[in-house]
Amino acid sequence: MPRYVDHDARRDLVAGVAADLVAEEGLEALTVRRVAQAAGHSTTVVSHYFADRRDLVTSTYRAAAARTSARFDAALAGARARGGDPLQACLEALLPLDDERSREWRTWFAFWAMAVSDIDLAAEQDRRVQSARARIAAVLADEQAAERVRLPADGSTADAAYRLLVLVHGLGTHAAFDAAHWTPQRQREAVAAELAALRPEGRQPSQTS
Amino acid sequence: MPRYVDHDARRDLVAGVAADLVAEEGLEALTVRRVAQAAGHSTTVVSHYFADRRDLVTSTYRAAAARTSARFDAALAGARARGGDPLQACLEALLPLDDERSREWRTWFAFWAMAVSDIDLAAEQDRRVQSARARIAAVLADEQAAERVRLPADGSTADAAYRLLVLVHGLGTHAAFDAAHWTPQRQREAVAAELAALRPEGRQPSQTS
Repeated sequence: MPRYVDHDARRDLVAGVAADLVAEEGLEALTVRRVAQAAGHSTTVVSHYFADRRDLVTSTYRAAAARTSARFDAALAGARARGGDPLQACLEALLPLDDERSREWRTWFAFWAMAVSDIDLAAEQDRRVQSARARIAAVLADEQAAERVRLPADGSTADAAYRLLVLVHGLGTHAAFDAAHWTPQRQREAVAAELAALRPEGRQPSQTS
Repeated sequence: MPRYVDHDARRDLVAGVAADLVAEEGLEALTVRRVAQAAGHSTTVVSHYFADRRDLVTSTYRAAAARTSARFDAALAGARARGGDPLQACLEALLPLDDERSREWRTWFAFWAMAVSDIDLAAEQDRRVQSARARIAAVLADEQAAERVRLPADGSTADAAYRLLVLVHGLGTHAAFDAAHWTPQRQREAVAAELAALRPEGRQPSQTS
């Protein structure tokens, strides 16, 4: 059904453009008119893809989340191929270490602000967090099997993953407002310090990448 | 000059009402009309206190921040009076452990979303973070002097305070969207675990309050 594939692909493309727009100018800029302008389409075309502004907001959020997930997977695959530290690499993929990711973090703030009073968007946000948590837990389980990670006897990979995600969100939030302090190097060191606590004793923490 | 005192006190009162409004309904609700309604004043009166919407937003932010600071100080004084753990107590004062503080966290999201594209509000947010950091660093220094905290040889109280604040912001963000997981008890435990790493060896971490 190429027609539908084409429809979905275009819809994703427009949602990606919308995500950029939110990162640059905030959620207020996320209107059918502005998105149409930025995507080089007519408002009729954009209205055809998105039922209403709410649909546009949720789709934009998903587009931004999909980008982050893809970066996470790529970082993980890269670290494994290079013999790097998979945990450090995939957590760094989530942090605002460059312009693209700093822009992405501005998008999250915009969505969080909206999600606190929008139950559907809050559910979407929770799904995204649980998905990230499951991905990190899977890496933790692999690392544990390879004896490069040791969790406390009463600790699950799911809980440890959540702790790491709390660190990522804390760092991302602070880095957005105090980039002078939270340089990429300091963010990497904070992740490395947190991971060092999970290493089996006697094992040196991996170098930050 | 009672007239000015009265003016400032009323302005603070209106800003407090505005902070509640943002917590309940988001920043979009923060208009002179809605604030006037909520505060039981005419729009003329509210316009007299705030130069424009931007002034209203910044003042509302400051009102919310002032409340948080007061809670921090009260928690610290309380813990010292009771012989409790000052660090645990003042960090808990910042976390969304009850309805009031959860509402406050929704206010922060709204402001963060706005601050990323507003340089003055971003500066205000940075000032607030640096003030919280300095307060926590002061408590750390006291605890260090009392030998209840030991920082790594290369670590400053300012850096350790920032790490604790990163934890607080990560926890607050996650708790807002996954309250079922991040119960007050789990948030307290996460803080206690982080503080345990700062205790001199052989010393048991304090009980969570």
